[in-house]
Amino acid sequence: MAKGIKIATIGGGSSYTPELVEGFIKRYDELPISELWLVDIEAGREKLEIVGDLAKRMIKKAGLPINVHLTLDRRAALKDADFVTTQFRVGLLDARAKDERIPLKYGVLGQETNGPGGLFKGLRTIPVILDICREMEELCPDAWLINFTNPAGMVTEAVLRYSNIKKVVGLCNVPIGMEMGVARLLDVDHSRVRITFAGLNHMVYGLDIFLDGVSVKDKVIDLITNPDNAITVENVPALEWEPEFLKALNALPCSYHHYYYKRSDMVEKELKNAKELGTRAEVVKKLEAELFELYKDPNLDVKPPQLEKRGGAYYSDAAVRLIHSIYTDKKDIQPVNTINNGAIAGIPADSAVEVSCIITKDGPKPIAIGELPVAVQGLVGQIKSFERVAAEAAVTGDYNTALLAMTINPLVANDRVGKLILDEMLEAHKEHLPQFFHN
Amino acid sequence: MAKGIKIATIGGGSSYTPELVEGFIKRYDELPISELWLVDIEAGREKLEIVGDLAKRMIKKAGLPINVHLTLDRRAALKDADFVTTQFRVGLLDARAKDERIPLKYGVLGQETNGPGGLFKGLRTIPVILDICREMEELCPDAWLINFTNPAGMVTEAVLRYSNIKKVVGLCNVPIGMEMGVARLLDVDHSRVRITFAGLNHMVYGLDIFLDGVSVKDKVIDLITNPDNAITVENVPALEWEPEFLKALNALPCSYHHYYYKRSDMVEKELKNAKELGTRAEVVKKLEAELFELYKDPNLDVKPPQLEKRGGAYYSDAAVRLIHSIYTDKKDIQPVNTINNGAIAGIPADSAVEVSCIITKDGPKPIAIGELPVAVQGLVGQIKSFERVAAEAAVTGDYNTALLAMTINPLVANDRVGKLILDEMLEAHKEHLPQFFHN
Amino acid sequence: MAKGIKIATIGGGSSYTPELVEGFIKRYDELPISELWLVDIEAGREKLEIVGDLAKRMIKKAGLPINVHLTLDRRAALKDADFVTTQFRVGLLDARAKDERIPLKYGVLGQETNGPGGLFKGLRTIPVILDICREMEELCPDAWLINFTNPAGMVTEAVLRYSNIKKVVGLCNVPIGMEMGVARLLDVDHSRVRITFAGLNHMVYGLDIFLDGVSVKDKVIDLITNPDNAITVENVPALEWEPEFLKALNALPCSYHHYYYKRSDMVEKELKNAKELGTRAEVVKKLEAELFELYKDPNLDVKPPQLEKRGGAYYSDAAVRLIHSIYTDKKDIQPVNTINNGAIAGIPADSAVEVSCIITKDGPKPIAIGELPVAVQGLVGQIKSFERVAAEAAVTGDYNTALLAMTINPLVANDRVGKLILDEMLEAHKEHLPQFFHN
Amino acid sequence: MAKGIKIATIGGGSSYTPELVEGFIKRYDELPISELWLVDIEAGREKLEIVGDLAKRMIKKAGLPINVHLTLDRRAALKDADFVTTQFRVGLLDARAKDERIPLKYGVLGQETNGPGGLFKGLRTIPVILDICREMEELCPDAWLINFTNPAGMVTEAVLRYSNIKKVVGLCNVPIGMEMGVARLLDVDHSRVRITFAGLNHMVYGLDIFLDGVSVKDKVIDLITNPDNAITVENVPALEWEPEFLKALNALPCSYHHYYYKRSDMVEKELKNAKELGTRAEVVKKLEAELFELYKDPNLDVKPPQLEKRGGAYYSDAAVRLIHSIYTDKKDIQPVNTINNGAIAGIPADSAVEVSCIITKDGPKPIAIGELPVAVQGLVGQIKSFERVAAEAAVTGDYNTALLAMTINPLVANDRVGKLILDEMLEAHKEHLPQFFHN
Repeated sequence: MAKGIKIATIGGGSSYTPELVEGFIKRYDELPISELWLVDIEAGREKLEIVGDLAKRMIKKAGLPINVHLTLDRRAALKDADFVTTQFRVGLLDARAKDERIPLKYGVLGQETNGPGGLFKGLRTIPVILDICREMEELCPDAWLINFTNPAGMVTEAVLRYSNIKKVVGLCNVPIGMEMGVARLLDVDHSRVRITFAGLNHMVYGLDIFLDGVSVKDKVIDLITNPDNAITVENVPALEWEPEFLKALNALPCSYHHYYYKRSDMVEKELKNAKELGTRAEVVKKLEAELFELYKDPNLDVKPPQLEKRGGAYYSDAAVRLIHSIYTDKKDIQPVNTINNGAIAGIPADSAVEVSCIITKDGPKPIAIGELPVAVQGLVGQIKSFERVAAEAAVTGDYNTALLAMTINPLVANDRVGKLILDEMLEAHKEHLPQFFHN
Repeated sequence: MAKGIKIATIGGGSSYTPELVEGFIKRYDELPISELWLVDIEAGREKLEIVGDLAKRMIKKAGLPINVHLTLDRRAALKDADFVTTQFRVGLLDARAKDERIPLKYGVLGQETNGPGGLFKGLRTIPVILDICREMEELCPDAWLINFTNPAGMVTEAVLRYSNIKKVVGLCNVPIGMEMGVARLLDVDHSRVRITFAGLNHMVYGLDIFLDGVSVKDKVIDLITNPDNAITVENVPALEWEPEFLKALNALPCSYHHYYYKRSDMVEKELKNAKELGTRAEVVKKLEAELFELYKDPNLDVKPPQLEKRGGAYYSDAAVRLIHSIYTDKKDIQPVNTINNGAIAGIPADSAVEVSCIITKDGPKPIAIGELPVAVQGLVGQIKSFERVAAEAAVTGDYNTALLAMTINPLVANDRVGKLILDEMLEAHKEHLPQFFHN
Repeated sequence: MAKGIKIATIGGGSSYTPELVEGFIKRYDELPISELWLVDIEAGREKLEIVGDLAKRMIKKAGLPINVHLTLDRRAALKDADFVTTQFRVGLLDARAKDERIPLKYGVLGQETNGPGGLFKGLRTIPVILDICREMEELCPDAWLINFTNPAGMVTEAVLRYSNIKKVVGLCNVPIGMEMGVARLLDVDHSRVRITFAGLNHMVYGLDIFLDGVSVKDKVIDLITNPDNAITVENVPALEWEPEFLKALNALPCSYHHYYYKRSDMVEKELKNAKELGTRAEVVKKLEAELFELYKDPNLDVKPPQLEKRGGAYYSDAAVRLIHSIYTDKKDIQPVNTINNGAIAGIPADSAVEVSCIITKDGPKPIAIGELPVAVQGLVGQIKSFERVAAEAAVTGDYNTALLAMTINPLVANDRVGKLILDEMLEAHKEHLPQFFHN
Repeated sequence: MAKGIKIATIGGGSSYTPELVEGFIKRYDELPISELWLVDIEAGREKLEIVGDLAKRMIKKAGLPINVHLTLDRRAALKDADFVTTQFRVGLLDARAKDERIPLKYGVLGQETNGPGGLFKGLRTIPVILDICREMEELCPDAWLINFTNPAGMVTEAVLRYSNIKKVVGLCNVPIGMEMGVARLLDVDHSRVRITFAGLNHMVYGLDIFLDGVSVKDKVIDLITNPDNAITVENVPALEWEPEFLKALNALPCSYHHYYYKRSDMVEKELKNAKELGTRAEVVKKLEAELFELYKDPNLDVKPPQLEKRGGAYYSDAAVRLIHSIYTDKKDIQPVNTINNGAIAGIPADSAVEVSCIITKDGPKPIAIGELPVAVQGLVGQIKSFERVAAEAAVTGDYNTALLAMTINPLVANDRVGKLILDEMLEAHKEHLPQFFHN
């Protein structure tokens, strides 16, 4: 890394990119990036150019010697990269809209990460990620792969099990959002709050909550039994927790837990939303169009504030924070998706978990958590079973394995209905699922 | 056990008792019982007398020196017993009818073992079982407790965790029924078929299937993809498995898996049944009334064939077979609920599992299974979480813990709906749940 | 196995072969062997012929249609075999004599299984066993490999880790000898005694001892605190246990435990024996010469009683008993070396252990033991570490790894002395250790 | 902790105390101690006064408002303490001399932590520590117990298993010494070196070594194969490692590993030392006498440099560093003895381990290490077995259990010799082992 750091961002045309660039600019003093390669595919060329130009203007304004390259040539971008970040979306938001719409037709939540929607996002994404891994082995074997393409847990699991890349981290904005939410609730600075995170991606729990190092878990749980204090993310409709449930759970759930602890209510809500507002993908699509209109403005040279409504806020910032800590061997605590290594009892040592880690130059080192609370072991284990079977289906393209993944998903739990959804989704996503159609 | 074996049967007035007696008669040569104490409570006195008199006639016909005692004095029955069998039902079938009806009102399956119905059956049963355990410590500390009161898994878990009785076995007729079903399918004698069972009570899988020691799993799974070949129990409505699902599962599910792998279809079916035929409890209640009419016949001195339609067929026979193998140190293989001890990876060593065991005079010794298939680890873990939280709620009488158990149950998965069901069921079963109302 | 069973015995010229043949004759009714191939190498041709002719006379006397083939062509012997037994000794007894003599020069026990002697026996044996495994994959992929070449634990570990043969069982006569010793002590028939065995080969403990299914462990431990009641094997000099140690251990040690719980006394004793009587190998060599003189007698047509003094008594009989139980799916309990699969906590699931198993046509199924007593976990773990590092050294031929295995061995525990022993033994066994000299 | 921190130091009359005081003075800005209570027993009154007066002079010189209390009243010292540090020595150095001398008479190393000497130090110390724990429950239930009395691993194990105090940390100067040694070797500042520590107290390995976050393990191991580069502590005679052994071990051993990987050589060396120089205790006794002569000097008001030769250098500084990090929620990485919690595979989750931890106000959080290298699992497990059996013997005062601990110790490994040592040591330490003599 002598001559400055090279970053390759796959899916560089994403609307999130300005946040990424802003993060790099903010931390330039300690994270001297010399090259930022934004890669995209032909279908994303226009967006890549719009957002790439904005990136250039932002860097110019900051007066930093970071070269921004816009390219459709992934291999050129990967060559000698120090960090590879992945934020692409196979099939774009239209594919996500199908992930959400089709299951709902059968009364089932789509849920783009751990539900049937997530299954299909995984089936489309994992082969591409594994291709990238193979290229990384050849072109930048020492680079870190920082993935924030969803389903981040399943993708990390697949990389750990089916590639030779071991320097991989999966990233999510949910835990950081929970910490910021708690800080707002307590009316203190974010830096004073620390949550002990453990679980899986979008299935993570705050097992303990500290303010200046002293546990305030009971107080926080008490506070959030008041629905006005709910901590939510833009992507998930907010519903109120039953206070007695929350107290017995004795841990901070994440927004995505609504799908598993309020299943039938969420089905109703999403059916209603889909009808009245469109699904989340459809809403986001509009937001994105508006964002890209803004990005086109040749006078814009900062990240526009509207981006924060996009839902993935802090994702890119979390990525830059992580890269910064790895590069500087900072040894701070961050929640990321990494190999379990025994940190959480009951999850295989070689599986991906989302857990509080020390971030070193040698990668994230999970803090040993021990046993999850009895009441959450089951659901976490069930999503891990799902992730593993889904990853296998993505790699093998085996129909039966895909049906198995669909059926054991707790939002589906029905082999007959699962098959209906599977068949319709396979057909709808055919173009992006060659592994299921070419053999 | 010098002077002959003493058996104490709690819930002796059960309609199953004639099968138990028949089992003892058949095996008398190797299992020389001298005293059979049938115990019941005041409310069951009439049934106890009817079934007790039949038992006496059966033994008289067999010409065996077994003394049958009918009593409401549990302590007298337990005193110096060698085996204690438990087959009682707190609140009788009326309680079970509520366990089934109330959740259905909210669109949720009752499921008397691992669902909300099972939760309430556990809440009513566990305190009684723990009382029996305390009495056993005092009155017959060397006796074996053979429990076949449902939910047998949760009850065994509770005894292992919350009593000092370590000589406990939970028994179920489901695995033996699966073996007999496979034997019928293959048109061979039951003795030639052996299934490797692993999982939890009513959540057990046949991981491998042997005919004369050679695996025929693939063949059997292939056969049962034909719905005409379904292996079912009377208690669970039969629905067809998707063949591709079954092949990917690559294990023999039990009948109760329909609730978890065909959830929404089972809701519909049970709603329909409840409307047209009554719930299973209501059906059984009629069957039982008919059975007791038969039992009253002073000329009847054998187990009437009608009993086999009752649903619990082979339960009592399985119990006698187990007692026989313990008493004679037979070292045969039987599937029972016992302490895991590492046999199934991923389930706590001190939790109850249902697994193929060698039955010795020193109790059942589980065969080391290793890891469950990835796809089933999750669901099994989820039911174990549920069983453990439910057992804790039963012992503590804590409302919040009961709500937690209800909410994490995969058939409920909704804290709001769970609370509605919980509140209505607590009220309905108030009389039998003193631990929730007396503090 | 339609036309009768084919057995291939590698090392067929061994002095043990008559016991093997006797075992096959005794069990012929249920174990209809049609072909017995005794294989040896050129250097063993004479012994093979002597013992092979005796085998033929024994079978002729028994009037059974078993064809005995004597051959130096291992591939011909393996072709379509149903069971492959291995009882060869690379370098013959002269090599064992070096295994014992060289370490003693440095004040260290040789110990032909778990000591430096065992390390070298493993280094010589494992490459040959892995060759046999490769041939089995090609020539008899469905056969069972029944290994009783020492060090049986290390060899089984190596087959499990470094070959594709999964149908492998390691066999030892020590546990069966312990059961027979306890039976003699209690003056009862062997069939009434059952010991719960767990540990590793030559590092196995009787965790509980049953007479007719009832624990008599305390009584037996009490008995053997009397040195007149010691249970020993011919191979290991008997020394008295301290009664208080034995009571605190609360388990039945095997003879080989003297090396680890009486280390310095055993060094002295073996030094004295080596001087006065010769090492065990040297004693055995004389016994063997005498046996082969007996075997030559053309009138001898039964196993001569002198064989029982050889030290490995019951080895071959144990092998036949095991083959019999596998072939007939007998489901009896036998202690063998097999994959742990979670049966013993704290030992890797994929490592070999010696443990009580149910023997089925599908192989041995270990009984779940759970945790070993705290006091023995450490030593068992240490030998497992040694076995694994030693197996790696055998496969890689890496000098440093061999030195590591030598140094971590509890009988050596000295890198400097270990290096001296290693260097001298490598030189002495050069001919049989091509992997260390050819790269 | 509003009005400043209260420290209670049990064994306050120790020669280490000036280092402790120096540490507190250095960190006063962030660690505002208001009260330092130095406690000792009657026999230590003179030393307490000498060292206590020096402490007062040091604080006076620093101009800090820390009140130093000298007392024989332990309860008064514990009352409302925030941190309790333990550095006492039951029986003083005379007892240690016996711990070393007696085993050597039988050709066995004493080894004051993990050998027979350590066993007896544990038997004397653990009951006192458990008394302190009981008093802490009553007098300062929120305090942290920072133990640096040896054997620190066994003591921490005993507190975790046999007391209700969960806020306990065991501390050792060995790992910090290894890091400083590596820093010297690489000629860099200590702050740039970080070692991943895992194992047990005095049985800890450096699994990886980082310079500025980049692994330099291979380089360091290469360097220390040169005996001039050995990293040693004053307490353990230095011997050279065989380079090939070290390379295969592929981890940094600690000084105490000489006892286990150079056992017979260390016996010889210690026999020679004992004869020529006296045992370590005898050497230290002289050093201590000289130190106390220095301490008496009324003009001395700083820690004299001679203390660093004492052998326990950095112990007290490590303690202050730990207290500082806990108090300030510093979240830095320090190697300490704490509950394993799954961090090291194969060691019980509820046992003490020595491992790199993040130090928070909520205590040390171990970094998940996963599996130890195969070659070291065994020895680590053996010492853990020893520690657990020894702790049980200390608590129960059971002779047989003590003999079991003695015999399974890898330095003894002989029940007969173990009994001789045990009997002589029990007699020699009778006064301090009431649990073995009063029942």
